[in-house]
Amino acid sequence: MTVTTAPTLATIVTPGLVLDLSRLRRNLDRMAARLGARGVPLRPHLKTAKSLPIARLAAPRDDSPITVSTLAEAEYFAGDGYRDIFYAAGLGPGKFARAAALSQAGVALVTMVDARATAEQLSQAAHAAGVGFRTVIEIDCGEHRGGMLPESDELIPTARALGLNFAGVATHGGQSYGARSEAETAAVADSEAQAVRTAANRLTAAGWPCAIVSLGSSPTALAGADLSGITEVRAGVYMFWDLFQAGIGACQLDDLALSVVAEVIGRPAGRNEFLVDAGAFALSKDLSTAALPPERQAGFGWVCDLEGRLLPGLAVRRVWQEHGLVTSAEPLPPEAFPIGSRVRILPNHACPMAAAYSHYNVVNGGQAVVAIWQRVNGW
Amino acid sequence: MTVTTAPTLATIVTPGLVLDLSRLRRNLDRMAARLGARGVPLRPHLKTAKSLPIARLAAPRDDSPITVSTLAEAEYFAGDGYRDIFYAAGLGPGKFARAAALSQAGVALVTMVDARATAEQLSQAAHAAGVGFRTVIEIDCGEHRGGMLPESDELIPTARALGLNFAGVATHGGQSYGARSEAETAAVADSEAQAVRTAANRLTAAGWPCAIVSLGSSPTALAGADLSGITEVRAGVYMFWDLFQAGIGACQLDDLALSVVAEVIGRPAGRNEFLVDAGAFALSKDLSTAALPPERQAGFGWVCDLEGRLLPGLAVRRVWQEHGLVTSAEPLPPEAFPIGSRVRILPNHACPMAAAYSHYNVVNGGQAVVAIWQRVNGW
Repeated sequence: MTVTTAPTLATIVTPGLVLDLSRLRRNLDRMAARLGARGVPLRPHLKTAKSLPIARLAAPRDDSPITVSTLAEAEYFAGDGYRDIFYAAGLGPGKFARAAALSQAGVALVTMVDARATAEQLSQAAHAAGVGFRTVIEIDCGEHRGGMLPESDELIPTARALGLNFAGVATHGGQSYGARSEAETAAVADSEAQAVRTAANRLTAAGWPCAIVSLGSSPTALAGADLSGITEVRAGVYMFWDLFQAGIGACQLDDLALSVVAEVIGRPAGRNEFLVDAGAFALSKDLSTAALPPERQAGFGWVCDLEGRLLPGLAVRRVWQEHGLVTSAEPLPPEAFPIGSRVRILPNHACPMAAAYSHYNVVNGGQAVVAIWQRVNGW
Repeated sequence: MTVTTAPTLATIVTPGLVLDLSRLRRNLDRMAARLGARGVPLRPHLKTAKSLPIARLAAPRDDSPITVSTLAEAEYFAGDGYRDIFYAAGLGPGKFARAAALSQAGVALVTMVDARATAEQLSQAAHAAGVGFRTVIEIDCGEHRGGMLPESDELIPTARALGLNFAGVATHGGQSYGARSEAETAAVADSEAQAVRTAANRLTAAGWPCAIVSLGSSPTALAGADLSGITEVRAGVYMFWDLFQAGIGACQLDDLALSVVAEVIGRPAGRNEFLVDAGAFALSKDLSTAALPPERQAGFGWVCDLEGRLLPGLAVRRVWQEHGLVTSAEPLPPEAFPIGSRVRILPNHACPMAAAYSHYNVVNGGQAVVAIWQRVNGW
C-alpha cells in the first residue's frame, strides 16, 4: 500500500495545502509591473507566504526589501541571507532583545513604534545593546488600528526620542478591505498616501527627513493613487489572492493561487450535501466573504475539481474541527462525489487558511506536485 | 539582553499559549470521578490537547483508550506506546494505507465508517494489507454531520460488509453545543445514548454483537444520561474548557485551563482601548460565544491579568492577523495597560486557539513556567 509514483493532488495527504506556481508567478509579475511602471519599489509582505522559495521569487536578492509579520519570520528569512527586513507591527519592549539580536546579526531591521514613551525605551535598549534600528513612526491613515494621526503633536517629539534610530514613517490602509468598489478603494489609497506624506512633510520641515515613507495593502497598491513622496509599497496577499479579494474586485477568481485538497468522507443519504476532511482547522473559521453581497458569499470556501475548475453552486457551509459540510445549490446526483473522491477548496482568506499547514504542495497548473515548500508558523 | 532567569509569563515569547496544570488536573479528576461513579470507561479525546504529557495525565497507560482527530495524532501517540486509539472521523479510502500501517505497527486502531460501500472497500484494503481493524459504524444521533440513522436499512448490510473488522457503533452528540440550558443538554445526552443503543440492539439482534458502543461530547458526558449498554464515553474539551463551554453552563470560568499571554503594543490616544500582539492567528477567528446572550459574548476573548484574574469589561473586539484590539466597557485611566505590559486572554473556543501553537507554556497556578510541552499539529 506504499505510494511509489510521483505525488499528485490525487495522492497527497488530505487536507493538504496547494500552491499553484503558475498563478503565483503571474500575480508577482503583475504587481511588479504595476509598481515598476510607477517607479516605486515594492517591499513584499511575506506574512501569508512564510516560505523561503516564495520569498526568493518575490524578492530575489539578499538585499531585496521584505516585510514580515512576526519576529519568527524575520529570523527565518535572515537565516537565509535577507538583510532588509521590515517588522510591520508595533515593536513592544518584550521584543526588543530579539530585534537587537537580529541587528547584531547584520540585519538592517526596520522597526515601528507609535508612542513617544516606546521610542524612548527603544532608543535606550538599542544604545545598551550597541545596535541601531531603522525605526519608523506608525501613522493612522484611517484604519484606527495602531499609529498616531499625521497631525499629532506627538509626531516630532517621537522622532526626537528615536534620535539616530529615526528612519521615517509608515502606514497601512487596511480599511481598503471595507471598500466595495474601485472608487472606494481608490479613495482609501489616496488617503493612505496623503496621511503618510503629511506626516513625512511635517517631520522633514522639523529637521527629521524621512528615508522611509512606506505604505501599502494589496488593494490600495493596485489602485493607482498619487505616490509622490512614497519610497516603498508593502503588499502581501496579492501573491495568492482569495475569495474576499476577488469579491471586492481586487483580483479575478482565476488569480487565486492557494487551495486545499480534501477527500470526501461522508455522503449522507437523502441530503444534498457531502462531508470532506477539511474543517475549521484546515480552512480556518474566517468568514470574510460573509460581509459581501450574497452572490459573493462563499461560506467557508467555494469548491473546485482537482484540476482547479470551479464547481458553481458548491460551498462549504458548516465546519467542525476536522469536518466540512459542502452544500450544493443544485440537486446532487447520487453518484456524484462518492466517498474517496477529492475536491479543492478556495479560501475566503488566504492568510489564516495557509497558517494551518507546515508546507505547500506546489503544482504548476496541473495536478502533479512538483515541489514541497516549507512554511514558518508561530512566533 | 539575554534572559538568564527561569521563564515566567512575564518573559516568554508573546503571543504564547499557557496551560494551567492545576486546572487541567482538576478538570481531569472531575470527569474521571463523574464517569467512574457510573462505571463507564472514558476514552479521552486528544484533539485539543495534541500533546504527550497531557495524554499521559488523561490516559496514563499504553493500553489506556484514547481518541484522536487526525492520523498525525494517531501516529504521534502510537510512537510513544499508545495501542488503543480511536480515529473519530469517517475513514476515507485515501487514509486506508496510513491506518493499515498503524495496525501493522501493533495499534488496535478503531476506525469509523458510515456507508456500506466504504465498509466493503475498507474490508478489501485490510485483507490486502493483512491487517484487521476494529471498525465502528457511525450513527447520526441528531447532529446531522456524518453517520447513518439508527433505523437505517443500511446498518446490518454495512456490518456484514465489514465482516471480521466489525466492532460496534459510535456517535457524537455535537448538537449539545447548541443547548442553552442543563435541561436541553440532558435531552441531547439522552438522545445520543438512545440512538447508539438502538443501533447496537438492532445489530446484536441480527447476529452482530457490539464490542464497542461509544458516544460522547464534553457537555453530554457530564449530563447524567442513562448510559446502560454504553461501553465508553469520548470527551475532549473538558480538559481545558473555554468561554463557550462556560457560557452554556458546562463549566465555570475558573475551570478554564488555557489562555494566551499577549503584550500591549499600542495605546491609541483618546481611545478607550489598547492593542495587543495577539490577533486572528494567536486567538483564532472563532466567535462561538457570539451565539450566546449578550452578557456572555466574549468577542475574540475576555482579558485577565498575568495571574489569571478576570478583568471584567475588557474583551478583544477586533482582530487582524497579528493585532488584537481590546476594548474596555469602562473608561480606561491613561496610565492603565501601558505599552509593554502583559495580559492573558481566555479563548472562545480552546481547540482552534491552541492549534496555532507549537507548544504549551505550563504553569501551576502562578506565573512561573514549570514546563514546555510540545503539540502535534497538522495532518
